[in-house]
Amino acid sequence: MTLDAVLDRIDADQLGALDRLFALLRLESVSTDPAYDGQVRAAADWLVADLTEIGFEAERRDTPGHPMVVAHGGTGGPHLLFYGHYDVQPVDPIELWDRPPFDPVLKDAPHGKVIVGRGTADDKGQLMTFVEALRAWKAVHGDLPCRITILFEGEEESGSPSLVPFLKENADELRADLALVCDTGMWDRETPSITTSLRGMAGAEVTIRAADRDLHSGYYGGAAANPIHLLTRILAGLHDADGRVTLDGFYDGVRDIPPALKAQWDSLGFHEAAFLGEVGLTTSAGEPGLTALEQTWARPTAEVNGIWGGYTGAGFKTVLPAEAHAKISFRLVGDQDPDAVMASFEAHVRAGLPPDCEASFTGKDGSRAMTMPVDAPEFETARAALSEEWPKPAVFVGAGGSIPVVGHFQTVLGMNSVLIGFGQSDDAIHSPNERYDLASFHKGARSWARVLAALTGRA
Amino acid sequence: MTLDAVLDRIDADQLGALDRLFALLRLESVSTDPAYDGQVRAAADWLVADLTEIGFEAERRDTPGHPMVVAHGGTGGPHLLFYGHYDVQPVDPIELWDRPPFDPVLKDAPHGKVIVGRGTADDKGQLMTFVEALRAWKAVHGDLPCRITILFEGEEESGSPSLVPFLKENADELRADLALVCDTGMWDRETPSITTSLRGMAGAEVTIRAADRDLHSGYYGGAAANPIHLLTRILAGLHDADGRVTLDGFYDGVRDIPPALKAQWDSLGFHEAAFLGEVGLTTSAGEPGLTALEQTWARPTAEVNGIWGGYTGAGFKTVLPAEAHAKISFRLVGDQDPDAVMASFEAHVRAGLPPDCEASFTGKDGSRAMTMPVDAPEFETARAALSEEWPKPAVFVGAGGSIPVVGHFQTVLGMNSVLIGFGQSDDAIHSPNERYDLASFHKGARSWARVLAALTGRA
Repeated sequence: MTLDAVLDRIDADQLGALDRLFALLRLESVSTDPAYDGQVRAAADWLVADLTEIGFEAERRDTPGHPMVVAHGGTGGPHLLFYGHYDVQPVDPIELWDRPPFDPVLKDAPHGKVIVGRGTADDKGQLMTFVEALRAWKAVHGDLPCRITILFEGEEESGSPSLVPFLKENADELRADLALVCDTGMWDRETPSITTSLRGMAGAEVTIRAADRDLHSGYYGGAAANPIHLLTRILAGLHDADGRVTLDGFYDGVRDIPPALKAQWDSLGFHEAAFLGEVGLTTSAGEPGLTALEQTWARPTAEVNGIWGGYTGAGFKTVLPAEAHAKISFRLVGDQDPDAVMASFEAHVRAGLPPDCEASFTGKDGSRAMTMPVDAPEFETARAALSEEWPKPAVFVGAGGSIPVVGHFQTVLGMNSVLIGFGQSDDAIHSPNERYDLASFHKGARSWARVLAALTGRA
Repeated sequence: MTLDAVLDRIDADQLGALDRLFALLRLESVSTDPAYDGQVRAAADWLVADLTEIGFEAERRDTPGHPMVVAHGGTGGPHLLFYGHYDVQPVDPIELWDRPPFDPVLKDAPHGKVIVGRGTADDKGQLMTFVEALRAWKAVHGDLPCRITILFEGEEESGSPSLVPFLKENADELRADLALVCDTGMWDRETPSITTSLRGMAGAEVTIRAADRDLHSGYYGGAAANPIHLLTRILAGLHDADGRVTLDGFYDGVRDIPPALKAQWDSLGFHEAAFLGEVGLTTSAGEPGLTALEQTWARPTAEVNGIWGGYTGAGFKTVLPAEAHAKISFRLVGDQDPDAVMASFEAHVRAGLPPDCEASFTGKDGSRAMTMPVDAPEFETARAALSEEWPKPAVFVGAGGSIPVVGHFQTVLGMNSVLIGFGQSDDAIHSPNERYDLASFHKGARSWARVLAALTGRA
């Protein structure tokens, strides 16, 4: 049988697949920090070479930011676009890593082997599951299962500034019948999932300026404005006592969870204590009356992701600093408008300042929340194929993260996306000691082989 | 006349005095950062050598922290102890310095020449005014004006952990009739001053811990506690809408300004708009109904001197950090008890935490506020001597800073202190581009010669 031979080939080539993934993981493709620009480009070149080896016409396509990797291969329908990103998050705080983040290893964990290193789960390990499925297919059949376009991005972790212009400029080349995106997780280690909703995002870095220089708190303390005080008051004022965001108009476009969707989520058997306990917490910090699942899948947030100002070195320095800074992001749901949220946030900040202090903002491209058209037939086809591979049937789930490319595929290219990924909740993505289950990597490739066979009618 | 010859000698040796000060300024004696330990010791050794050259028996006296410099010289009464500190503040933010902080230069400013560099005003330039006065006295008379003990500290900018134990262990050696302390400023460029009150200090670094690792705000945002949010809410809650500190019992021991003292302060002709305008501000941030002078001299404060947590590098990272940190200091007045203030602060922090988050504290030695016994005759003697040197008569002033050694001299050695210094409000101490008027350095030395002559009955 067509599919079985491909699955066998994936099983036989596990060590080769690991070698390739490790080579990609060693490239330090941190997109948000210009110091790593050369490593980002090297990762793009590595992918071009690897895709070329399995028969794609692949190119590194430079942009004003980091390059895209675009590859075309195969013939016959449907035409599928596969998306992943090869850039990674910064590694800070580096001191909390057990080993160098770009020197990946295979380690034993209670639930089986894991691959440890920056980018293992987000997103190099995931995108390579698809590449390995294609490699096996090509080896067995001499060709790819259908017409496939690959788009690998190098700016996903730094706001994707070049993505929309690139999609617009190359719309005819990139438009396919369906996008497949591998940047999400499984419901649990036995249950694969297809993500059917994503939160949107808005964000900014804010700087508060008070005096025109750092001041001595002995001379000026009590009389001069302290920008850290202003910033803490402004940020503390973002939430009320119930954890609701206080910005004017913030909940415009936020809808209650439809009863049918709530019922489906309730049937997943979510364990809030386990979800929080896994990271050392016991108490949900969000709005009362909602489960942590509902808080992260269906409710918007305002989160301070970073704050700094004044003296932060060893010991003490009694300074009133001239400036204080914070990075804020908002996760959006429903029809919330990222621009309106940012405008309301800026107004909130300015309203909290005395007349002799000022605020400035560095924006971040926003994205709206997305809900997938789960009635389209591909969703059921993919769900059935995934269910063949794993111990439990695949489920449709929400997600608290933001994958703006899914919205851009819809609005720029008119294309639906099916989001399938094999991450686990303890992968520690964006954190020290990021990891990816070896089972996710291996069975992920097998899963894609099954999905491709199903979508092309060869299962 | 005895004094005139000394003053002439100081005038004649101005370039030599500058050379010596520059040599001391080049030693990078940042006491709060262990990376500079060797430079702190080098500065102590430099002072020992210089004091030995003018006839002192001088020694570097090691402590568990940075060394003290102790020197004895001269005969006859009164026995005076002179105190200064040779350590300096860190240089951050280094990018705001116009030139390297430890490469001092003489520059032209609108009001005359200034010496620019870290430690020029706080406190190396100031302590060298006294040393240069003694050097001139010795050159003219072959001896020092009276029995003089010198104590130079190397930990003043890092909380003086070794000071009290050192004073206690060497009390008999260090006890004198009167202490002279040169770490304060002038009322303005024409008016010298003696500082008759100091605020006390308490402080701590606080760390808030939530989850046991950094989290992805897409997976956990809305459900997991964000320690930056907790910290901003806790810090914002330190002040009410009127700028009063909200901690339980904080104002215990704070007294209203006595009418006579208020009248004396009112007579100084304080210009609030100029005081704030000098640093780019227009609006007093403290309690209403008080001048900025009263806010800084007579009212306690809570100030956040530093804050940090989460991602603070270039670009964005949608992290919920595991920890957030702040450095807080309190300026104290009247009979406020530093230990009680810290206990109340810790209780305030803990009361602001959910059950699954925790706080830890790194303390800073506290000090009580001090009021000098201005009726003691030395104060009027010194005031008259200072008035001879400068265009306008010397005044008694308050101060918003904290000089804990003055309290320790009183409690450990039973000794009053006369605080005379030549700093200006625009010296930018603790800040980038710290400077010290050349006039302060030169006329400061002449002032000490006059004060020494007056105190020893030779004026």
